[in-house]
Amino acid sequence: MGQTIIEKILSSHSGQEVHANDIVVARVDYVMGQDGTAPLAIKAFNEMGGREVFDRERVAFVIDHSAPSPNEGVSSLHKLMREFSREKGFCLYDVGEGVCHQVVPESGLVGPGSLVIGADSHTCTYGALNAFSTGVGSTDLAGGLISGRMWFKVPGTIKFVCRGTLSPGVFSKDLILYLIGDVTADGATYMAAEYTGEAIAALSQEARFTIANMAIEMGAKAGLMEADEKTFAWLGRFTRRKFSPVNADPDAEYAKILEYDVSGIEPQVARPHRVDNVAPVGEVAGKPVQQAVIGTCTNGRLEDLRIAAGILRGRKVHKEVRLIVAPASRRVFLDAMAEGIIRDLVEAGAAVVTPGCGPCVGTHNGVPSDGETVISTANRNFKGRMGNSKAEIYLASPATVAASAVTGKITDPREFI
Amino acid sequence: MGQTIIEKILSSHSGQEVHANDIVVARVDYVMGQDGTAPLAIKAFNEMGGREVFDRERVAFVIDHSAPSPNEGVSSLHKLMREFSREKGFCLYDVGEGVCHQVVPESGLVGPGSLVIGADSHTCTYGALNAFSTGVGSTDLAGGLISGRMWFKVPGTIKFVCRGTLSPGVFSKDLILYLIGDVTADGATYMAAEYTGEAIAALSQEARFTIANMAIEMGAKAGLMEADEKTFAWLGRFTRRKFSPVNADPDAEYAKILEYDVSGIEPQVARPHRVDNVAPVGEVAGKPVQQAVIGTCTNGRLEDLRIAAGILRGRKVHKEVRLIVAPASRRVFLDAMAEGIIRDLVEAGAAVVTPGCGPCVGTHNGVPSDGETVISTANRNFKGRMGNSKAEIYLASPATVAASAVTGKITDPREFI
Repeated sequence: MGQTIIEKILSSHSGQEVHANDIVVARVDYVMGQDGTAPLAIKAFNEMGGREVFDRERVAFVIDHSAPSPNEGVSSLHKLMREFSREKGFCLYDVGEGVCHQVVPESGLVGPGSLVIGADSHTCTYGALNAFSTGVGSTDLAGGLISGRMWFKVPGTIKFVCRGTLSPGVFSKDLILYLIGDVTADGATYMAAEYTGEAIAALSQEARFTIANMAIEMGAKAGLMEADEKTFAWLGRFTRRKFSPVNADPDAEYAKILEYDVSGIEPQVARPHRVDNVAPVGEVAGKPVQQAVIGTCTNGRLEDLRIAAGILRGRKVHKEVRLIVAPASRRVFLDAMAEGIIRDLVEAGAAVVTPGCGPCVGTHNGVPSDGETVISTANRNFKGRMGNSKAEIYLASPATVAASAVTGKITDPREFI
Repeated sequence: MGQTIIEKILSSHSGQEVHANDIVVARVDYVMGQDGTAPLAIKAFNEMGGREVFDRERVAFVIDHSAPSPNEGVSSLHKLMREFSREKGFCLYDVGEGVCHQVVPESGLVGPGSLVIGADSHTCTYGALNAFSTGVGSTDLAGGLISGRMWFKVPGTIKFVCRGTLSPGVFSKDLILYLIGDVTADGATYMAAEYTGEAIAALSQEARFTIANMAIEMGAKAGLMEADEKTFAWLGRFTRRKFSPVNADPDAEYAKILEYDVSGIEPQVARPHRVDNVAPVGEVAGKPVQQAVIGTCTNGRLEDLRIAAGILRGRKVHKEVRLIVAPASRRVFLDAMAEGIIRDLVEAGAAVVTPGCGPCVGTHNGVPSDGETVISTANRNFKGRMGNSKAEIYLASPATVAASAVTGKITDPREFI
């Protein structure tokens, strides 16, 4: 009986052929925690009587949610993480290294066929590398740190077949917002989403991360893609490690197959306060914004900054708008500097913050004021997400956010191309 | 009867010849508030029945202490500042523009002979431009905003005559720490400090700002220098406005004249928890540090970052140290990027934060943990200054901080030159 990608990965990691709805205990290849979740996991680790982590080379903590620390309480949690990782001898990505979902792929330790758990909702990002990666809670993280294993109910798979070609000014962020709008926020609950078709194949590896990153926003356990030469070229920048691609069998069984022609998709915007409250940009164009954010694990990669700089170069951020830019990692920051992208953004008026989550999670670095409207490249616009429940958040592509930062109101980026 | 610099500036701004201890009402050329003080000043402005600011072109608010905002409460204060400045029609330097004491000089509106008040202790910085500038409270700021005037008791002047030449590895920061250590934190209370002599003349304009900046740390009302071709060259980068230098008369009367030969001064460090608790670096060398900070209104200028990069280039920040770098302004950030300085710092392991006060004032962007030791280029090491009363702060030059970041302990920078 044929298998989907996730069934194959869970089979190889549990030593048996498994199919949707089976319960399995699987070996995990990599375990990650960040500063919002790792402190509780350390507590659970100790309460469980944990002594050592299962494999020092396959564990990392990342300080990204509040980096550098905005207050004494957070500083104590960071210290706890530093001491724990030093004592156990595994990798800590400290202040300035970047968002977990960028630094983990850059580590070269995660690739096609990997099974990864991370105590962060958007751990599904690495599905763009043909890995099964998923978010877990702090207690599960502790169990994973100790045992290197995790139980799963094998998810069924929804196949998203994306045909056609995205129009100019329309990006992978628009595509995934469109898909989430279509299937809704609970349309893929505990399913794996497999994204395939010529429109996915045509995307750069970086653009694909954006799509996998937001699988959780339709309720999915994972968002996966097959690996191709772009995947291996991207990985080759960071590692010589060899990975074998995991492809779905032609006769794999899908819970659902959804087909889309992406050619007609326009730039999309998710309106407050739900990610699936999606509309073409034209329906919300003209709405004044006071803050614009480019960055996060969704859209803080080099390509994203390059797209934004393409619009902002030689222009100025509107005088009543703050534009905050958070490169996703130290590497992204350096590469963007080398290309002149950071210069262009800063000359246009951007405030660049330390690589990390930036203001996305409301911990610091750009909490909006009461009554303000923010347009952001992030993945969530829930009420209060950015630290103020009296602010409104719109989600869009880096191009749409950059265009809106220039005009001071939500703007179709095609006006700038 | 001869006059000191401050007596001349207060004479020209009060329309009468004044001398130390006279009480005068003077016209002010420029009034500044930042996000720690402006919100209270707005309240006082309204309570005083203020309608308009005295001159829209001579007033600015700067959002630098918490930029971008780390929490909802601060965001509301920022919003208040934005609305007030927009309503009254004066300049607001928003998130990302930099520290007030860098952006005000860069505005070109302040120079030799100017009289400036700012609601920030380190407003004395512009004394390096041959201006009388001083810190005031929020209520005085409100009065200044309305009237463009302020009353002063004319300060007496202590003349610091600095002869000789600073040794390699010894900078203006070491000199001012040495002077503060010598006269102590209340050694110049309500006096003007006039810095003169060949050692001051030999300093770059940027290095001079560091000395004027810290006048308040010896209790002084102002720290002043004469203008020379370096002063005018520096100003010429930002403005075509003409200023006339204000020199002390040869027969000016000084409260005290202190003479120093700077040639023997070694790199200095101010130990916790007082700025005047100063020692040569050798006395504290070897003390482990967990955080290093380069930036602030004291030492966040291009030359400071260049000195730090000179040590960090091709080296790595010690693995148990976080190095936080805060360029003093957007201009400094751009210039440092153009020179490759930011790249070098980031490659060495620095976390660059948004131009502004950074972690100096404990509001965000690098609050230390309990029991940690910080070495910083800032101007204050009071208990709790950086947001944690259980941390210790040492103050030093950018060179000493950079060297210490590399070794993980307080280090004489001359080991690296």
